[in-house]
Amino acid sequence: MQLPSSLLENAVNEFAKLPGIGKKTALRLVLHLLKQDVTDVTTFSDTIAKMRNEIKFCQRCFNVSDGDICAICANSFRNQRLICVVETIRDVIAIEATQQFSGTYHVLGGVISPLDGIGPDQLNIESLTHRIQQEQTEEIIFALSPNIQGDTTIYYIQKKIQHLPCRVTTIARGIAFGGELEYADEMTLARSLANRLPVQQYVKS
Amino acid sequence: MQLPSSLLENAVNEFAKLPGIGKKTALRLVLHLLKQDVTDVTTFSDTIAKMRNEIKFCQRCFNVSDGDICAICANSFRNQRLICVVETIRDVIAIEATQQFSGTYHVLGGVISPLDGIGPDQLNIESLTHRIQQEQTEEIIFALSPNIQGDTTIYYIQKKIQHLPCRVTTIARGIAFGGELEYADEMTLARSLANRLPVQQYVKS
Ligand SMILES: [Zn+2]
Ligand SMILES: [Zn+2]
Repeated sequence: MQLPSSLLENAVNEFAKLPGIGKKTALRLVLHLLKQDVTDVTTFSDTIAKMRNEIKFCQRCFNVSDGDICAICANSFRNQRLICVVETIRDVIAIEATQQFSGTYHVLGGVISPLDGIGPDQLNIESLTHRIQQEQTEEIIFALSPNIQGDTTIYYIQKKIQHLPCRVTTIARGIAFGGELEYADEMTLARSLANRLPVQQYVKS
Repeated sequence: MQLPSSLLENAVNEFAKLPGIGKKTALRLVLHLLKQDVTDVTTFSDTIAKMRNEIKFCQRCFNVSDGDICAICANSFRNQRLICVVETIRDVIAIEATQQFSGTYHVLGGVISPLDGIGPDQLNIESLTHRIQQEQTEEIIFALSPNIQGDTTIYYIQKKIQHLPCRVTTIARGIAFGGELEYADEMTLARSLANRLPVQQYVKS
């Protein structure tokens, strides 16, 4: 695609770096911004830059946060002794959207995947086991993607904390094995949380 | 959608203002940017802001341009006495992609549409007729969307310049009436240009 301006071309190339945005879509977005007021486009670009520069991660659960501790961890109406262990921030948002969970989260940052070079040390696992011990957590619920890597991660963490008096469950298999958690609908996610299983039972099934 | 950070929420809302980007897609894009290096996101936002702040429009043809005169108008290898009249910059890009047209352009900025309150004065029509007179243009080719508004615009401009010794043609009907020019494939567009008709013949057909 030959573009009549290098300024336009650079902007199109930047948008085309985003996932799922091809060159044609990128051009449509850029030409749309070109028609907007300068102040509106400045707001757009400043908001994106500010988000990346100023966003923080909760020191306790690794969720995104505007402060050092996220709003969920700071909320005393939520059960702070119940931890839902997830892979990503997207999973936190998906579960929050169900409005059925009133505990806290722990964002691992992924799952153990030796083929991708991701071991336990690259994930927020140490902080989780430390947290369970320190906070006398009553239950952790694994809400990981139902695949081999998720199962490996559950197995690994369970071994690490088996000496602690903490109930360990996983969300029910409402989602097809191999599916991705974040694409599950809210009802399925909510039911999976309600019908959660002790991990021992899950591993046997 | 409840988001755990207002910085995140603001960024999602900005992306969701773009055409064809819903809240879910916006969130995916923002979470992608959150994973990128700060410098990469700064480049993204700076490039967009710079595009909007610094881009110019060619003083002759109203195409986007990095300078006062666009690269097409400044190119002496192109036929400067042949003008293809289009609605938008997107149409210029679509026709350039065919690599079959070696004349220049004139971007009207839309078509006459009384229902939308767009009359000839809101469009770059005066500058076009002035240009045809001044530059002793040999031919203008209308490449407007094949619909009522496009036809009205052709009729209006043709009346204005009928006293001038300039050939007036339109691209051939290769595109379905009511279709949008920019979504035509390159082959169809190229053929439409090659099989262009004198407007008199087109109006009768
Ligand atoms: Zn937190
Ligand atoms: Zn020009």
